[in-house]
Amino acid sequence: MDRFSERTRELERRLATEGADGAIIATGPNAYYFSGFTGERDRHLVLLITPDGERTFVSGASYVGQVRDNAKLGEILCVPDNTAASVVEGLVSALPTADGTYFVDDRMRTEESHRIRAAVPDATFELLSEVVAPMRVTKDETELDGLRRAARLTDEVSTEIRKLGTEAVGMTERELAVEIRTRLHERGAVGEAFPAVVAAGLNGARPTEYRHGDREIGAGEPVVVDFGGFFDGYASDQTRTVVFDGDPPEGFVEAHGVVYAALEAGVAAATPGATGGDIDAAAREVIEEAGYGEQFTTGTGHGVGLRGHEPPSISPGSEDELREGMVFSVEPGIYVEGEWGVRLETIVALTADGPEPLNESPYTWKPL
Amino acid sequence: MDRFSERTRELERRLATEGADGAIIATGPNAYYFSGFTGERDRHLVLLITPDGERTFVSGASYVGQVRDNAKLGEILCVPDNTAASVVEGLVSALPTADGTYFVDDRMRTEESHRIRAAVPDATFELLSEVVAPMRVTKDETELDGLRRAARLTDEVSTEIRKLGTEAVGMTERELAVEIRTRLHERGAVGEAFPAVVAAGLNGARPTEYRHGDREIGAGEPVVVDFGGFFDGYASDQTRTVVFDGDPPEGFVEAHGVVYAALEAGVAAATPGATGGDIDAAAREVIEEAGYGEQFTTGTGHGVGLRGHEPPSISPGSEDELREGMVFSVEPGIYVEGEWGVRLETIVALTADGPEPLNESPYTWKPL
Repeated sequence: MDRFSERTRELERRLATEGADGAIIATGPNAYYFSGFTGERDRHLVLLITPDGERTFVSGASYVGQVRDNAKLGEILCVPDNTAASVVEGLVSALPTADGTYFVDDRMRTEESHRIRAAVPDATFELLSEVVAPMRVTKDETELDGLRRAARLTDEVSTEIRKLGTEAVGMTERELAVEIRTRLHERGAVGEAFPAVVAAGLNGARPTEYRHGDREIGAGEPVVVDFGGFFDGYASDQTRTVVFDGDPPEGFVEAHGVVYAALEAGVAAATPGATGGDIDAAAREVIEEAGYGEQFTTGTGHGVGLRGHEPPSISPGSEDELREGMVFSVEPGIYVEGEWGVRLETIVALTADGPEPLNESPYTWKPL
Repeated sequence: MDRFSERTRELERRLATEGADGAIIATGPNAYYFSGFTGERDRHLVLLITPDGERTFVSGASYVGQVRDNAKLGEILCVPDNTAASVVEGLVSALPTADGTYFVDDRMRTEESHRIRAAVPDATFELLSEVVAPMRVTKDETELDGLRRAARLTDEVSTEIRKLGTEAVGMTERELAVEIRTRLHERGAVGEAFPAVVAAGLNGARPTEYRHGDREIGAGEPVVVDFGGFFDGYASDQTRTVVFDGDPPEGFVEAHGVVYAALEAGVAAATPGATGGDIDAAAREVIEEAGYGEQFTTGTGHGVGLRGHEPPSISPGSEDELREGMVFSVEPGIYVEGEWGVRLETIVALTADGPEPLNESPYTWKPL
């Protein structure tokens, strides 16, 4: 049995346990997880999976060929138009009962889910993540390999960017972000996991908000470079902080060393049975003991998989229990407001052999 | 009064006319339209607008700075977490009544809209597009300028790509798609309007499905090149069909001429009071009379604005009536299955002076 069938069988079992009548799945990560279908946004395709083994793609006629080529699972119900109204009409005709309980994809547009509710007003709806998030949070071997490959290709880009050295001085943050995107795309990324962060000087001290802008990268300026892409469905995400040329500002080299030590402590704490909060605490303790506690203003990490940000949560107090197969970022930082920031990040896979850091490109702040 | 306030006032009037209690708006095109807020996907920000002038952004604490810098409208209600649960809790506390009628953004994720419904079970929900689509379908001067600029920058890329000439032969479709993306990004596009179509030879005959793949572009092969980006919120979209080197296949030059004549006829038919169906018929008639009717297998066009595809519909039988300020594509084609395709496309703005084609880069199939 292939992995798509295995996952679908598991979903069927979970639906049966919940007494539910079906899962209504949108294009995107869940459709990919259960069928291998790599659809684009703004198409109205829907996949219906029922506990008794029905697996139906509802698709506008123009996209039926793509579904046939692309999805490894399911019958196709062809509807005339590529519109929400047409697809929902088809879906509703395929539902096993009009007053049942359905789990609806969290990422489905309200444009569709509203129409579904209106068409079967006696049905009950729950969010699909309730049954699917516990499945997706641990990755199987195929998924781990996908995440390893995504990390490796992203590391190649990271190393190339670092090697720009003096060349990067005088470029704007935006220009460097374009370089990053291009190199990700050249390696087959179909999109960025998030808009690349290229945050020079004081912009580096705004970790949750800042992406990139028109600031020119100056000599001696630390630049937080944080990016990732989607490779065959799986996300990557890594951060390095680089001084492309010249001497770094006072205090930066020490802070960089502290952040690296915090990252190592976070990775080492990633063992089955620990919680997300434990990893956060391990990384945070290193930074606090070095006297920078107030300047580590974010959580330590987040899960990564078919989305760039997903469970588990690796932040203060998180009770998400770590299990083999979980994959998440460890990304401590020190942010000196109005001056500079430093952040380092690797993705970690929790395997039978312990924590496996996936992003092994150089951590140094020096160009190569 | 700035344009965001004007649009919001107009929405307030429409809500009052409908007897509704508020509009619940997601990040994306509608938030941009009413407030100028350029948020990223996967954030849970919500904007509430009520008929009596309340305008409230509900945002997780980490993004409040971004909202303050970026949105030209509204109070900020800060909630602790950047999660759907936290933002919905904040929103519900701000709703004027728990049993009112609310228009919910079609593009809001079900993750949020489901939670909103669960929190106020006695409220009634309708899709926001019912009140907002009629506003957004005609563009004001600022929007027209945004669309003109997006078209001009995209035309620059189109001309550069054509100039590759012999250089493009031997590249894969994917490599050329990367070139296109990079050049769009260099000009400030924050993303593509859709994955670029680079469809060589027989791939060019699959107009609705095919984007790009690993096929090498051969000499004498027509390549359908169809792409667009988002520039300051507004989409572009243009198509040219190019033979980068060598002699085109038999029949291609004639078909290319027919498609160009169809495009001109479609543009000329774009006058206030005509319907989308009229434009489609004008373009289609040229292709039918030349004997290629069976090979024009798509509609003629679609509206363009804050989304790449939006109303009006320019397809057979469309009764969407054209009015000044509407902007849409005219993109006839001839698709010879198993051999090649040809499509040409411009965006057209319907102004007081008549139809204004926005994409004026060369239409020829020859490189420059």
